[in-house]
Amino acid sequence: MIKLDFEKMGGLIPAVIQDHESGEVLMVAFMDEKTLNLTLETGKTWFFSRTRNKYWMKGEESGNTQEVKEVLTDCDADTVVIKVKQNGPAACHTGNRSCFYVKWENGEWVEHSNPLFDPNEVYKK
Amino acid sequence: MIKLDFEKMGGLIPAVIQDHESGEVLMVAFMDEKTLNLTLETGKTWFFSRTRNKYWMKGEESGNTQEVKEVLTDCDADTVVIKVKQNGPAACHTGNRSCFYVKWENGEWVEHSNPLFDPNEVYKK
Repeated sequence: MIKLDFEKMGGLIPAVIQDHESGEVLMVAFMDEKTLNLTLETGKTWFFSRTRNKYWMKGEESGNTQEVKEVLTDCDADTVVIKVKQNGPAACHTGNRSCFYVKWENGEWVEHSNPLFDPNEVYKK
Repeated sequence: MIKLDFEKMGGLIPAVIQDHESGEVLMVAFMDEKTLNLTLETGKTWFFSRTRNKYWMKGEESGNTQEVKEVLTDCDADTVVIKVKQNGPAACHTGNRSCFYVKWENGEWVEHSNPLFDPNEVYKK
């Protein structure tokens, strides 16, 4: 029976969140065993924030939740790819559709930011 | 100027390798600053193996190298997505096209292995 390996990263695994239709990688965050189980049980994506040291559900503040369509793990069971339907206009807290809007071009990182919502409106301080 | 944050994971960042045409996530591995620079300079994917504690180029043994087409980082610059042309039949050392051939189905992980080469042939002991 396959069991996920959380040990390699001290209890966490990377979770690659992919748009189930376009294949675009929307974000990469981290899960522990509890948040992976919450994701599998609720059908919404839950993560462990390394910086805020807390559990969080994607969209708990913004409403931009993610509906789980498919969950895959890899050959050494230490990473997951989760295909989701992204609710709302964007996945990234900056308002960008995907968090991966910075591209390596001619020897430097170039931002291609195109926010689809105003973070100041969505994330009230 | 954007600089990648290797500190969060003690010198490493996750690298999500995606087929540049199909969008399929082929594998997730880890890079340090040196292997990211090698990847950007050589146009082939280089990683740091946490288990073997060494640098490796994808395909150095199998010949299944990966040609870098596009490199993206995210809003907090601590992860990269690299779109590649996969040379040879498969990315995974098991012979599967993608390492993500295990799917969560009805409460358990189910293997959907379909090797496109024989690892015993390709990886001589």
